[in-house]
Amino acid sequence: MTNSPPSTGPDFSKNDGLLPVVAQDAETGAVLMVAYMNDEAFAETQRSGRAVYYSRSRGRLWRKGEESGHYQTVRQILIDCDADTILLKVTQQGAACHDGYRSCFYREVTPTGLVTLGQPLVDPRQVYRKGKG
Amino acid sequence: MTNSPPSTGPDFSKNDGLLPVVAQDAETGAVLMVAYMNDEAFAETQRSGRAVYYSRSRGRLWRKGEESGHYQTVRQILIDCDADTILLKVTQQGAACHDGYRSCFYREVTPTGLVTLGQPLVDPRQVYRKGKG
Repeated sequence: MTNSPPSTGPDFSKNDGLLPVVAQDAETGAVLMVAYMNDEAFAETQRSGRAVYYSRSRGRLWRKGEESGHYQTVRQILIDCDADTILLKVTQQGAACHDGYRSCFYREVTPTGLVTLGQPLVDPRQVYRKGKG
Repeated sequence: MTNSPPSTGPDFSKNDGLLPVVAQDAETGAVLMVAYMNDEAFAETQRSGRAVYYSRSRGRLWRKGEESGHYQTVRQILIDCDADTILLKVTQQGAACHDGYRSCFYREVTPTGLVTLGQPLVDPRQVYRKGKG
């Protein structure tokens, strides 16, 4: 597996080969989550049309939805000016967040503490047997 | 400067104290850029109401717009489920990208290579004397 040169895609020679990825709902524009990809995850995402990340905690590829069924169909892939951050526009099946919320960004930071916005879509205990997915 | 505990804000004990931050246009929902904050940048962002990042390349706080005038007024601050990624909803003055585009994500990755979307808002040579801002 060779790194993609910056002129054709993300530059995996940066950031120790692990680039942040923003997953954005292609329909609503909501930012769903931020995860990471290595070159292998990126290549499989391109090939399969479904988001595949690299799980830093598990140290392996993470096929989003592999356990929960909450996969992401990729509609568009963009990179930033420095070619070291990826933006995926996706159609999200169910909840992006392993806490059961549609988006992982379900808490607002306010001067008086965290405020939870909205309600979970699903009960994570019903979705996961273990870990994230 | 002490780290914020996860229960009230971002957890700067993670990721070597440097957390990724997604800046999203509060009006249009467009993802404008991804940068990083340490606890000091986060505290100043909260206090001032303008986005302040930590520039990894310059090794210092980066008051977005300090050189270009293209500052970001913060409308809402959210954190993700793991408290290690920040989402800022901002009102962007001018171009977020130092290449002159509204968003840093102005290139699509396609099977045949990169495709530039849209046009720059400004000529970066007219905005910057040096570096990013």
